[in-house]
Amino acid sequence: MKLAILGTGGGARAQTAKLAELGHDVIVGTRDPEATLARAEPDIMGNPPYGQWLADYPGITLLSFADAAAAADDLVINGIDGHNAVAALTAVADQLAGKTLIDYAVPYVYQHETDHPWPTPWGVMPKLDPCDTDSLAEQIQRALPDTKVVKSFVTQEQTTVVSPRAIGDGDHTMFVAGDHADAKQQAIDLLTSYGWSDILDLGPLVCARGMEMYAHMHSAIGFGLGQPFGGHFGIKVVR
Amino acid sequence: MKLAILGTGGGARAQTAKLAELGHDVIVGTRDPEATLARAEPDIMGNPPYGQWLADYPGITLLSFADAAAAADDLVINGIDGHNAVAALTAVADQLAGKTLIDYAVPYVYQHETDHPWPTPWGVMPKLDPCDTDSLAEQIQRALPDTKVVKSFVTQEQTTVVSPRAIGDGDHTMFVAGDHADAKQQAIDLLTSYGWSDILDLGPLVCARGMEMYAHMHSAIGFGLGQPFGGHFGIKVVR
Repeated sequence: MKLAILGTGGGARAQTAKLAELGHDVIVGTRDPEATLARAEPDIMGNPPYGQWLADYPGITLLSFADAAAAADDLVINGIDGHNAVAALTAVADQLAGKTLIDYAVPYVYQHETDHPWPTPWGVMPKLDPCDTDSLAEQIQRALPDTKVVKSFVTQEQTTVVSPRAIGDGDHTMFVAGDHADAKQQAIDLLTSYGWSDILDLGPLVCARGMEMYAHMHSAIGFGLGQPFGGHFGIKVVR
Repeated sequence: MKLAILGTGGGARAQTAKLAELGHDVIVGTRDPEATLARAEPDIMGNPPYGQWLADYPGITLLSFADAAAAADDLVINGIDGHNAVAALTAVADQLAGKTLIDYAVPYVYQHETDHPWPTPWGVMPKLDPCDTDSLAEQIQRALPDTKVVKSFVTQEQTTVVSPRAIGDGDHTMFVAGDHADAKQQAIDLLTSYGWSDILDLGPLVCARGMEMYAHMHSAIGFGLGQPFGGHFGIKVVR
Protein backbone atom coordinates (compact mmCIF):
# COMPACT_ATOMS: atom_id res chain seq x y z
CA MET A 1 0.00 0.00 0.00
CA LYS A 2 1.33 3.46 -0.91
CA LEU A 3 0.87 5.68 2.14
CA ALA A 4 1.73 9.31 2.74
CA ILE A 5 2.85 10.90 5.98
CA LEU A 6 2.74 14.68 6.15
CA GLY A 7 5.42 16.01 8.47
CA THR A 8 9.03 15.36 9.39
CA GLY A 9 9.03 15.77 13.19
CA GLY A 10 9.80 13.06 15.73
CA GLY A 11 6.30 11.59 15.65
CA ALA A 12 6.19 11.53 11.85
CA ARG A 13 9.60 9.84 11.79
CA ALA A 14 8.38 7.10 14.13
CA GLN A 15 5.34 6.52 11.92
CA THR A 16 7.45 6.64 8.73
CA ALA A 17 10.02 4.14 10.01
CA LYS A 18 7.32 1.73 11.20
CA LEU A 19 5.39 1.84 7.92
CA ALA A 20 8.60 1.25 5.96
CA GLU A 21 9.43 -1.67 8.27
CA LEU A 22 5.98 -3.12 7.58
CA GLY A 23 6.74 -3.07 3.86
CA HIS A 24 4.56 -0.18 2.77
CA ASP A 25 5.58 2.20 0.00
CA VAL A 26 6.03 5.35 2.09
CA ILE A 27 5.92 8.92 0.80
CA VAL A 28 6.73 11.75 3.20
CA GLY A 29 5.39 15.25 2.63
CA THR A 30 7.05 18.43 3.82
CA ARG A 31 6.50 22.12 3.14
CA ASP A 32 9.70 22.55 1.12
CA PRO A 33 11.64 19.33 0.43
CA GLU A 34 14.85 21.09 -0.60
CA ALA A 35 14.86 23.23 2.54
CA THR A 36 14.09 20.19 4.71
CA LEU A 37 17.03 18.27 3.23
CA ALA A 38 19.35 21.28 3.40
CA ARG A 39 18.86 21.75 7.17
CA ALA A 40 22.04 20.89 9.09
CA GLU A 41 20.82 21.65 12.62
CA PRO A 42 18.58 19.57 14.90
CA ASP A 43 14.90 20.62 14.82
CA ILE A 44 13.13 22.52 17.62
CA MET A 45 12.55 19.28 19.55
CA GLY A 46 16.19 18.19 19.28
CA ASN A 47 15.70 15.60 16.53
CA PRO A 48 18.70 15.25 14.19
CA PRO A 49 18.50 16.93 10.75
CA TYR A 50 15.93 15.17 8.58
CA GLY A 51 18.30 14.46 5.69
CA GLN A 52 20.65 12.69 8.08
CA TRP A 53 17.76 10.63 9.47
CA LEU A 54 16.37 9.83 6.01
CA ALA A 55 19.73 8.41 4.86
CA ASP A 56 18.92 5.28 6.92
CA TYR A 57 15.66 4.75 4.97
CA PRO A 58 16.68 4.61 1.29
CA GLY A 59 13.22 3.53 0.08
CA ILE A 60 11.40 6.61 1.34
CA THR A 61 10.54 9.48 -1.00
CA LEU A 62 10.36 13.09 0.25
CA LEU A 63 7.96 15.33 -1.67
CA SER A 64 5.94 18.49 -1.12
CA PHE A 65 2.73 18.20 0.94
CA ALA A 66 0.70 18.38 -2.27
CA ASP A 67 2.72 15.79 -4.18
CA ALA A 68 2.85 13.42 -1.22
CA ALA A 69 -0.91 13.66 -0.64
CA ALA A 70 -1.53 13.10 -4.36
CA ALA A 71 0.78 10.07 -4.44
CA ALA A 72 -1.00 8.20 -1.62
CA ASP A 73 -3.36 5.45 -2.74
CA ASP A 74 -5.91 6.15 -0.06
CA LEU A 75 -4.42 6.65 3.40
CA VAL A 76 -2.61 9.77 4.63
CA ILE A 77 -1.31 10.43 8.15
CA ASN A 78 -1.21 14.02 9.39
CA GLY A 79 1.94 14.72 11.35
CA ILE A 80 1.93 18.49 10.75
CA ASP A 81 2.07 20.36 14.05
CA GLY A 82 -1.37 21.28 15.32
CA HIS A 83 -0.91 25.02 15.14
CA ASN A 84 -0.27 24.91 11.37
CA ALA A 85 -2.29 21.87 10.37
CA VAL A 86 -5.56 23.43 9.16
CA ALA A 87 -3.83 25.94 6.86
CA ALA A 88 -1.36 23.42 5.47
CA LEU A 89 -4.03 20.76 4.89
CA THR A 90 -6.52 23.20 3.36
CA ALA A 91 -3.87 24.08 0.77
CA VAL A 92 -3.83 20.43 -0.37
CA ALA A 93 -7.55 19.72 0.01
CA ASP A 94 -7.84 18.65 -3.65
CA GLN A 95 -5.06 16.08 -3.29
CA LEU A 96 -6.68 14.71 -0.09
CA ALA A 97 -10.21 14.52 -1.52
CA GLY A 98 -11.71 11.03 -1.31
CA LYS A 99 -8.93 9.80 0.98
CA THR A 100 -8.69 8.92 4.66
CA LEU A 101 -6.67 11.26 6.86
CA ILE A 102 -5.55 10.02 10.27
CA ASP A 103 -4.81 13.04 12.44
CA TYR A 104 -2.77 12.79 15.63
CA ALA A 105 -1.90 16.47 16.09
CA VAL A 106 -2.42 18.37 19.34
CA PRO A 107 -3.50 22.00 18.79
CA TYR A 108 -0.88 23.53 21.07
CA VAL A 109 -0.36 27.27 21.06
CA TYR A 110 3.23 27.64 22.17
CA GLN A 111 4.13 30.40 24.58
CA HIS A 112 6.46 32.08 22.10
CA GLU A 113 3.51 32.40 19.68
CA THR A 114 1.25 34.27 22.08
CA ASP A 115 1.22 37.07 24.64
CA HIS A 116 -0.60 34.87 27.13
CA PRO A 117 1.74 33.44 29.74
CA TRP A 118 0.68 30.63 32.05
CA PRO A 119 2.26 29.08 35.08
CA THR A 120 3.96 25.74 34.47
CA PRO A 121 6.32 25.29 37.42
CA TRP A 122 7.51 21.86 36.31
CA GLY A 123 7.80 22.34 32.59
CA VAL A 124 5.79 22.97 29.49
CA MET A 125 1.98 22.63 29.37
CA PRO A 126 1.03 24.83 26.42
CA LYS A 127 -2.43 26.24 25.85
CA LEU A 128 -4.76 24.42 23.45
CA ASP A 129 -6.67 26.15 20.66
CA PRO A 130 -9.28 24.95 19.80
CA CYS A 131 -10.37 23.37 23.06
CA ASP A 132 -13.48 22.12 24.87
CA THR A 133 -16.23 23.13 22.43
CA ASP A 134 -14.29 22.30 19.26
CA SER A 135 -11.26 20.24 18.26
CA LEU A 136 -8.52 20.39 15.67
CA ALA A 137 -9.86 17.21 14.08
CA GLU A 138 -13.31 18.76 13.65
CA GLN A 139 -11.71 21.91 12.18
CA ILE A 140 -9.81 19.77 9.69
CA GLN A 141 -12.96 17.82 8.80
CA ARG A 142 -14.89 21.05 8.20
CA ALA A 143 -12.04 22.42 6.06
CA LEU A 144 -11.80 19.17 4.06
CA PRO A 145 -15.38 17.94 3.65
CA ASP A 146 -14.36 15.46 0.93
CA THR A 147 -11.76 13.78 3.14
CA LYS A 148 -12.55 11.21 5.83
CA VAL A 149 -10.86 12.39 9.01
CA VAL A 150 -10.07 9.95 11.81
CA LYS A 151 -8.59 11.12 15.11
CA SER A 152 -6.25 8.55 16.62
CA PHE A 153 -2.68 7.99 17.91
CA VAL A 154 -2.92 11.27 19.88
CA THR A 155 -3.09 9.87 23.41
CA GLN A 156 0.50 8.56 23.40
CA GLU A 157 3.94 9.37 22.08
CA GLN A 158 4.22 8.15 18.48
CA THR A 159 7.22 5.98 19.38
CA THR A 160 4.87 3.99 21.65
CA VAL A 161 1.98 4.11 19.15
CA VAL A 162 4.07 2.23 16.60
CA SER A 163 5.47 -0.20 19.21
CA PRO A 164 2.64 -0.90 21.66
CA ARG A 165 4.15 -4.19 22.82
CA ALA A 166 7.18 -2.35 24.19
CA ILE A 167 4.93 -1.21 27.07
CA GLY A 168 3.30 -3.64 29.48
CA ASP A 169 3.27 -6.45 26.90
CA GLY A 170 0.95 -4.31 24.80
CA ASP A 171 -1.97 -4.46 27.23
CA HIS A 172 -3.08 -0.85 26.90
CA THR A 173 -5.73 0.98 24.93
CA MET A 174 -5.70 2.97 21.69
CA PHE A 175 -8.65 5.14 20.68
CA VAL A 176 -10.23 6.14 17.38
CA ALA A 177 -12.99 8.64 16.60
CA GLY A 178 -14.48 9.78 13.33
CA ASP A 179 -17.66 10.23 11.35
CA HIS A 180 -16.79 7.64 8.64
CA ALA A 181 -16.94 3.98 9.64
CA ASP A 182 -14.84 2.75 6.70
CA ALA A 183 -12.07 5.23 7.46
CA LYS A 184 -12.07 4.26 11.13
CA GLN A 185 -11.73 0.63 10.08
CA GLN A 186 -8.64 1.56 8.01
CA ALA A 187 -7.13 3.18 11.11
CA ILE A 188 -8.02 0.13 13.20
CA ASP A 189 -6.42 -2.19 10.62
CA LEU A 190 -3.26 -0.08 10.58
CA LEU A 191 -3.12 -0.09 14.40
CA THR A 192 -3.64 -3.84 14.42
CA SER A 193 -0.65 -4.18 12.08
CA TYR A 194 1.36 -2.13 14.61
CA GLY A 195 0.50 -4.72 17.26
CA TRP A 196 -2.48 -3.12 19.00
CA SER A 197 -5.05 -5.53 20.41
CA ASP A 198 -7.24 -3.15 22.47
CA ILE A 199 -8.61 -0.46 20.17
CA LEU A 200 -11.68 1.40 21.42
CA ASP A 201 -13.94 3.21 18.95
CA LEU A 202 -15.17 6.23 20.93
CA GLY A 203 -17.72 7.20 18.29
CA PRO A 204 -18.08 10.32 16.12
CA LEU A 205 -15.38 12.92 15.57
CA VAL A 206 -16.72 15.12 18.36
CA CYS A 207 -14.87 12.71 20.67
CA ALA A 208 -11.62 14.15 19.33
CA ARG A 209 -12.17 16.95 21.87
CA GLY A 210 -11.55 14.62 24.76
CA MET A 211 -8.65 12.93 22.97
CA GLU A 212 -6.89 16.24 22.28
CA MET A 213 -7.63 17.66 25.75
CA TYR A 214 -6.12 14.50 27.24
CA ALA A 215 -2.76 16.05 26.18
CA HIS A 216 -2.54 17.88 29.51
CA MET A 217 -3.22 14.67 31.43
CA HIS A 218 -0.60 12.89 29.33
CA SER A 219 1.93 15.62 30.20
CA ALA A 220 0.99 15.47 33.88
CA ILE A 221 1.35 11.68 33.99
CA GLY A 222 4.72 12.00 32.26
CA PHE A 223 5.90 14.46 34.87
CA GLY A 224 4.46 12.30 37.66
CA LEU A 225 6.47 9.36 36.34
CA GLY A 226 9.62 11.47 35.96
CA GLN A 227 9.35 11.31 32.15
CA PRO A 228 8.84 14.97 31.30
CA PHE A 229 9.89 14.88 27.66
CA GLY A 230 8.07 12.12 25.80
CA GLY A 231 6.59 9.62 28.18
CA HIS A 232 7.13 5.90 27.71
CA PHE A 233 3.76 4.73 29.01
CA GLY A 234 0.27 3.90 27.85
CA ILE A 235 -3.19 3.93 29.37
CA LYS A 236 -5.46 0.95 29.66
CA VAL A 237 -9.22 1.23 29.95
CA VAL A 238 -9.94 -1.29 32.70
CA ARG A 239 -13.48 -2.60 32.37
CA MET B 1 -11.69 10.51 62.42
CA LYS B 2 -14.45 13.11 62.05
CA LEU B 3 -14.71 13.93 58.33
CA ALA B 4 -17.00 16.30 56.46
CA ILE B 5 -18.41 15.87 52.98
CA LEU B 6 -19.91 18.93 51.35
CA GLY B 7 -22.68 17.95 48.95
CA THR B 8 -25.57 15.52 48.70
CA GLY B 9 -25.41 14.35 45.05
CA GLY B 10 -24.68 10.86 43.83
CA GLY B 11 -20.90 11.20 44.16
CA ALA B 12 -21.13 12.67 47.65
CA ARG B 13 -23.47 9.83 48.68
CA ALA B 14 -20.98 7.23 47.47
CA GLN B 15 -18.20 8.91 49.46
CA THR B 16 -20.44 9.33 52.51
CA ALA B 17 -21.55 5.70 52.56
CA LYS B 18 -17.98 4.44 52.15
CA LEU B 19 -16.59 6.62 54.93
CA ALA B 20 -19.38 5.52 57.25
CA GLU B 21 -18.69 1.87 56.34
CA LEU B 22 -15.01 2.43 57.23
CA GLY B 23 -16.06 3.60 60.69
CA HIS B 24 -15.44 7.33 60.38
CA ASP B 25 -17.63 9.89 62.09
CA VAL B 26 -19.22 11.45 58.99
CA ILE B 27 -20.77 14.92 58.79
CA VAL B 28 -22.51 15.95 55.56
CA GLY B 29 -22.85 19.61 54.61
CA THR B 30 -25.63 21.02 52.45
CA ARG B 31 -26.78 24.55 51.62
CA ASP B 32 -30.02 24.28 53.61
CA PRO B 33 -30.41 21.07 55.65
CA GLU B 34 -34.16 21.53 56.22
CA ALA B 35 -34.81 22.05 52.51
CA THR B 36 -32.61 19.06 51.61
CA LEU B 37 -34.55 16.81 53.99
CA ALA B 38 -37.91 18.19 52.88
CA ARG B 39 -37.33 17.34 49.20
CA ALA B 40 -39.64 14.52 48.07
CA GLU B 41 -38.57 14.32 44.42
CA PRO B 42 -35.45 12.68 42.91
CA ASP B 43 -32.61 15.14 42.23
CA ILE B 44 -31.58 16.39 38.76
CA MET B 45 -29.48 13.23 38.18
CA GLY B 46 -32.31 10.88 39.19
CA ASN B 47 -31.00 10.06 42.67
CA PRO B 48 -33.76 9.38 45.25
CA PRO B 49 -34.61 12.17 47.72
CA TYR B 50 -31.73 12.67 50.16
CA GLY B 51 -33.83 12.21 53.30
CA GLN B 52 -34.95 8.84 52.03
CA TRP B 53 -31.34 7.85 51.27
CA LEU B 54 -30.08 9.14 54.63
CA ALA B 55 -32.57 6.99 56.54
CA ASP B 56 -30.33 3.99 55.78
CA TYR B 57 -27.35 5.70 57.48
CA PRO B 58 -28.53 6.58 60.99
CA GLY B 59 -25.07 7.67 62.20
CA ILE B 60 -24.64 10.47 59.69
CA THR B 61 -25.32 14.08 60.64
CA LEU B 62 -26.61 16.61 58.10
CA LEU B 63 -25.57 20.23 58.78
CA SER B 64 -25.08 23.47 56.86
CA PHE B 65 -21.89 23.80 54.77
CA ALA B 66 -20.44 26.08 57.47
CA ASP B 67 -21.32 23.84 60.41
CA ALA B 68 -20.13 20.69 58.61
CA ALA B 69 -16.81 22.29 57.64
CA ALA B 70 -16.35 23.54 61.21
CA ALA B 71 -17.14 20.11 62.66
CA ALA B 72 -14.48 18.26 60.64
CA ASP B 73 -11.28 17.47 62.54
CA ASP B 74 -9.05 18.08 59.56
CA LEU B 75 -10.27 16.53 56.32
CA VAL B 76 -13.14 17.81 54.15
CA ILE B 77 -14.27 16.43 50.78
CA ASN B 78 -15.80 18.83 48.27
CA GLY B 79 -18.74 17.29 46.49
CA ILE B 80 -20.42 20.60 45.58
CA ASP B 81 -21.06 20.80 41.84
CA GLY B 82 -18.25 22.55 40.01
CA HIS B 83 -20.30 25.47 38.77
CA ASN B 84 -21.17 26.55 42.33
CA ALA B 85 -18.12 25.33 44.23
CA VAL B 86 -15.98 28.49 44.43
CA ALA B 87 -18.81 30.67 45.74
CA ALA B 88 -20.07 28.09 48.21
CA LEU B 89 -16.58 27.29 49.54
CA THR B 90 -15.54 30.94 49.77
CA ALA B 91 -18.52 31.52 52.05
CA VAL B 92 -17.10 28.96 54.50
CA ALA B 93 -13.42 29.84 54.09
CA ASP B 94 -13.03 30.52 57.85
CA GLN B 95 -14.38 27.08 58.77
CA LEU B 96 -12.05 25.42 56.22
CA ALA B 97 -8.92 27.35 57.27
CA GLY B 98 -6.05 25.08 58.27
CA LYS B 99 -7.82 21.98 56.92
CA THR B 100 -7.31 19.73 53.90
CA LEU B 101 -9.93 19.91 51.16
CA ILE B 102 -10.09 17.10 48.60
CA ASP B 103 -11.86 18.41 45.52
CA TYR B 104 -13.29 16.09 42.88
CA ALA B 105 -15.62 18.53 41.11
CA VAL B 106 -15.68 19.06 37.33
CA PRO B 107 -16.34 22.68 36.33
CA TYR B 108 -19.14 21.92 33.90
CA VAL B 109 -21.23 24.75 32.50
CA TYR B 110 -24.51 23.08 31.68
CA GLN B 111 -26.32 24.03 28.53
CA HIS B 112 -29.36 25.35 30.39
CA GLU B 113 -27.07 27.78 32.24
CA THR B 114 -25.63 29.41 29.12
CA ASP B 115 -26.57 30.75 25.71
CA HIS B 116 -23.75 28.77 24.11
CA PRO B 117 -25.00 25.59 22.46
CA TRP B 118 -22.62 22.88 21.29
CA PRO B 119 -23.07 19.75 19.25
CA THR B 120 -23.22 16.52 21.23
CA PRO B 121 -24.86 14.05 18.87
CA TRP B 122 -24.60 11.11 21.27
CA GLY B 123 -25.35 12.78 24.55
CA VAL B 124 -24.12 15.32 27.02
CA MET B 125 -20.59 16.76 26.89
CA PRO B 126 -20.95 20.10 28.65
CA LYS B 127 -18.49 22.94 28.31
CA LEU B 128 -15.83 23.39 31.01
CA ASP B 129 -15.10 26.71 32.72
CA PRO B 130 -12.33 27.18 33.74
CA CYS B 131 -10.38 25.11 31.24
CA ASP B 132 -6.89 24.73 29.79
CA THR B 133 -5.07 27.69 31.39
CA ASP B 134 -6.73 27.40 34.81
CA SER B 135 -8.65 24.82 36.80
CA LEU B 136 -11.41 24.75 39.37
CA ALA B 137 -8.99 23.34 41.93
CA GLU B 138 -6.60 26.26 41.41
CA GLN B 139 -9.52 28.71 41.68
CA ILE B 140 -10.53 27.12 44.98
CA GLN B 141 -6.94 27.22 46.27
CA ARG B 142 -6.66 30.92 45.38
CA ALA B 143 -10.01 31.64 47.07
CA LEU B 144 -9.01 29.65 50.19
CA PRO B 145 -5.30 30.35 50.72
CA ASP B 146 -5.37 28.95 54.29
CA THR B 147 -6.80 25.60 53.12
CA LYS B 148 -4.72 22.81 51.59
CA VAL B 149 -6.47 21.81 48.35
CA VAL B 150 -5.86 18.38 46.80
CA LYS B 151 -7.41 17.42 43.46
CA SER B 152 -8.25 13.75 43.27
CA PHE B 153 -11.10 11.26 42.63
CA VAL B 154 -12.12 13.27 39.54
CA THR B 155 -11.03 10.83 36.82
CA GLN B 156 -13.69 8.23 37.67
CA GLU B 157 -17.25 7.92 38.89
CA GLN B 158 -17.31 8.20 42.69
CA THR B 159 -18.98 4.78 42.98
CA THR B 160 -15.81 3.31 41.46
CA VAL B 161 -13.48 5.61 43.43
CA VAL B 162 -14.79 4.16 46.70
CA SER B 163 -14.76 0.56 45.37
CA PRO B 164 -11.70 0.27 43.12
CA ARG B 165 -11.52 -3.52 43.46
CA ALA B 166 -14.92 -3.85 41.77
CA ILE B 167 -13.12 -3.05 38.48
CA GLY B 168 -10.39 -5.26 37.05
CA ASP B 169 -9.40 -6.58 40.50
CA GLY B 170 -8.43 -3.00 41.39
CA ASP B 171 -5.52 -2.81 38.95
CA HIS B 172 -6.11 0.75 37.76
CA THR B 173 -4.69 4.14 38.63
CA MET B 174 -5.86 7.01 40.84
CA PHE B 175 -4.24 10.43 40.64
CA VAL B 176 -3.57 13.20 43.16
CA ALA B 177 -2.24 16.72 42.63
CA GLY B 178 -1.68 19.57 45.05
CA ASP B 179 0.77 22.07 46.43
CA HIS B 180 0.87 20.63 49.97
CA ALA B 181 2.67 17.33 50.46
CA ASP B 182 1.07 16.56 53.84
CA ALA B 183 -2.43 17.10 52.44
CA LYS B 184 -1.68 14.88 49.43
CA GLN B 185 -0.51 12.19 51.84
CA GLN B 186 -3.87 12.42 53.66
CA ALA B 187 -5.64 11.88 50.33
CA ILE B 188 -3.35 8.97 49.51
CA ASP B 189 -3.99 7.40 52.93
CA LEU B 190 -7.75 7.76 52.43
CA LEU B 191 -7.54 6.22 48.95
CA THR B 192 -5.44 3.36 50.32
CA SER B 193 -8.19 2.71 52.88
CA TYR B 194 -10.66 2.53 49.95
CA GLY B 195 -8.52 -0.24 48.42
CA TRP B 196 -6.37 1.69 45.94
CA SER B 197 -2.90 0.27 45.34
CA ASP B 198 -1.78 2.37 42.33
CA ILE B 199 -1.93 6.04 43.29
CA LEU B 200 0.14 8.40 41.14
CA ASP B 201 1.15 11.81 42.50
CA LEU B 202 1.14 14.04 39.40
CA GLY B 203 2.78 16.94 41.22
CA PRO B 204 1.55 20.48 41.96
CA LEU B 205 -2.05 21.64 41.72
CA VAL B 206 -1.55 22.94 38.17
CA CYS B 207 -1.95 19.28 37.16
CA ALA B 208 -5.61 19.57 38.13
CA ARG B 209 -6.10 21.11 34.68
CA GLY B 210 -5.37 17.82 32.97
CA MET B 211 -7.42 15.89 35.53
CA GLU B 212 -10.49 18.10 35.05
CA MET B 213 -10.12 18.23 31.25
CA TYR B 214 -9.98 14.44 31.24
CA ALA B 215 -13.75 14.66 31.92
CA HIS B 216 -14.44 14.78 28.18
CA MET B 217 -12.26 11.71 27.58
CA HIS B 218 -14.05 9.94 30.44
CA SER B 219 -17.39 10.74 28.83
CA ALA B 220 -16.16 9.59 25.42
CA ILE B 221 -14.83 6.30 26.82
CA GLY B 222 -18.14 5.77 28.60
CA PHE B 223 -20.03 6.29 25.35
CA GLY B 224 -17.57 4.05 23.49
CA LEU B 225 -18.22 1.29 26.03
CA GLY B 226 -21.99 1.81 25.85
CA GLN B 227 -22.04 3.27 29.39
CA PRO B 228 -23.25 6.79 28.71
CA PHE B 229 -24.46 7.69 32.19
CA GLY B 230 -21.82 6.95 34.80
CA GLY B 231 -19.18 4.62 33.42
CA HIS B 232 -18.12 1.53 35.34
CA PHE B 233 -14.45 1.52 34.31
CA GLY B 234 -11.06 2.81 35.36
CA ILE B 235 -7.83 3.74 33.63
CA LYS B 236 -4.49 2.16 34.32
CA VAL B 237 -1.21 3.91 33.59
CA VAL B 238 0.77 1.10 31.98
CA ARG B 239 4.50 1.69 32.48
